[in-house]
Amino acid sequence: MMTVGWIGTGNMGGPMAGHLMRAGYPLVVLNRASAGVTELIAAGARTAANPRALAAGCDAVFTMLPGTAEVEAVVLGPDGVRGGLKTGGLFVDMSSIAPAASRRIAAELAAGGIDALDAPVSGGEQGAIEASLAIMAGGTEAAFARALPLFEKLGTRAVRIGDAGAGQVAKVCNQIVVGITIEAVAEALALAEAAGVDPGKVREALLGGLAASRILERYGARMLASDYAPGARATLHLKDMTIAAQLAAEAGVDLPGMQLALERYAELVARDGNLDHSALRLLIASPPSSRA
Amino acid sequence: MMTVGWIGTGNMGGPMAGHLMRAGYPLVVLNRASAGVTELIAAGARTAANPRALAAGCDAVFTMLPGTAEVEAVVLGPDGVRGGLKTGGLFVDMSSIAPAASRRIAAELAAGGIDALDAPVSGGEQGAIEASLAIMAGGTEAAFARALPLFEKLGTRAVRIGDAGAGQVAKVCNQIVVGITIEAVAEALALAEAAGVDPGKVREALLGGLAASRILERYGARMLASDYAPGARATLHLKDMTIAAQLAAEAGVDLPGMQLALERYAELVARDGNLDHSALRLLIASPPSSRA
Repeated sequence: MMTVGWIGTGNMGGPMAGHLMRAGYPLVVLNRASAGVTELIAAGARTAANPRALAAGCDAVFTMLPGTAEVEAVVLGPDGVRGGLKTGGLFVDMSSIAPAASRRIAAELAAGGIDALDAPVSGGEQGAIEASLAIMAGGTEAAFARALPLFEKLGTRAVRIGDAGAGQVAKVCNQIVVGITIEAVAEALALAEAAGVDPGKVREALLGGLAASRILERYGARMLASDYAPGARATLHLKDMTIAAQLAAEAGVDLPGMQLALERYAELVARDGNLDHSALRLLIASPPSSRA
Repeated sequence: MMTVGWIGTGNMGGPMAGHLMRAGYPLVVLNRASAGVTELIAAGARTAANPRALAAGCDAVFTMLPGTAEVEAVVLGPDGVRGGLKTGGLFVDMSSIAPAASRRIAAELAAGGIDALDAPVSGGEQGAIEASLAIMAGGTEAAFARALPLFEKLGTRAVRIGDAGAGQVAKVCNQIVVGITIEAVAEALALAEAAGVDPGKVREALLGGLAASRILERYGARMLASDYAPGARATLHLKDMTIAAQLAAEAGVDLPGMQLALERYAELVARDGNLDHSALRLLIASPPSSRA
């Protein structure tokens, strides 16, 4: 069974690495903070001095990091994964980063005979814990085939979207849909409340029709309970929408809904970026109802 | 079993009235055009000279009409339903109209001892045909209890949202979510295509995660097939978004996503209002891909 290195054991990466270890993969872990790593080591994982040393002892290295800069530093930087992985090794980045960066990393690693996949996920902390993530992969068919048995321990759906970077493009699409749908649900529930109607009943009714979505179900419930503890932080969604805006500009398409979601997340982050991304609801002030 | 009058037998009302007749309710039908009515009469329904005459022979009258003006004319106008229904009768409007109009109609009918419900639906033509509609009702508990056995022949979920007009408020909320989510899915699939990635794969992957919705499933498939035959016409969604804008202004809430959807539907209707409301996808011009 291949030895797996895992870099980034936060809210998402920690539970994901744990699933692989429980599935029997020998695991080597590394994290900036001790959070996550300590538990995994207690459960049998080893650790390493730096990403290069970690990679040197592994057949495959996975990363789950906050953004483009962190992934580039860990992979291509001094003492990076690139210097450690042997020819024939596999690198899988499950972070959400700029598609162009994923293509650049894949090209650099290919030059050293290393297979690379970008494989960002949807489903959040809950999906990571329950191993119910949706995985969107970019890279060669061969690399995808090698990673698939491990993806199956992490999620319920793994789709190879296309070549390097394609997984990140799909993730951008995902975040556009998620961000705009959160805004839609927030507006609908705010309007119900302002019009003197029970928003809980509205959510219940709407879940039976064309408006039904996972966002209405899960985040509608959060909004009704005013529960905005993350989950997925607003700062991270703002980062994703910034990547989206950049990709849309590169691709030459005008996306006004994406633009609106970007502005909404910027506004929310200016208030409190540590709130869950469902907290867009807080941007809509509901006046006291005249017909409560 | 109560005798049911049904006014408005178009794409939605026709199949709905048919379900009630097949469930054993004696049916009297009326429509501006002969479409729908002819089939129902051939299957055993009676007809009447006008709404008043229809109502005079019925215990309950249902309407399924295009908008506020049509419903007000049929119920409160000369030879209207109001003049025909007896004290203790039931009136159920399943059209999508302005909440204020539903409240006005309910008040007028209550003065004559008639129970009224506003009970708009979500699910479209497919939902009407399959009897899988979501029904959002406003009115008294007693009126809802009387209508519920009939609603159960028309849909899979019927929720009493609140008093008169509350069903229409919920429908407005529904259309806000549906309209904005259509825009979200259109933008995501357009971006995928413009970025040189297979939008079909993106849809497949996103359906496994937090972006999953009935819109992504059904309308995503329509967009991929460029199938914009209605379904639900863009003109009708524009009407609904106009009601939404009016309700938001009355309620004093600022809803930028709703405003965007209103503008998108106005733009689409200016091109071709007879297209399905999923045709918002056509507003996003995808340049030839540089990485196809």
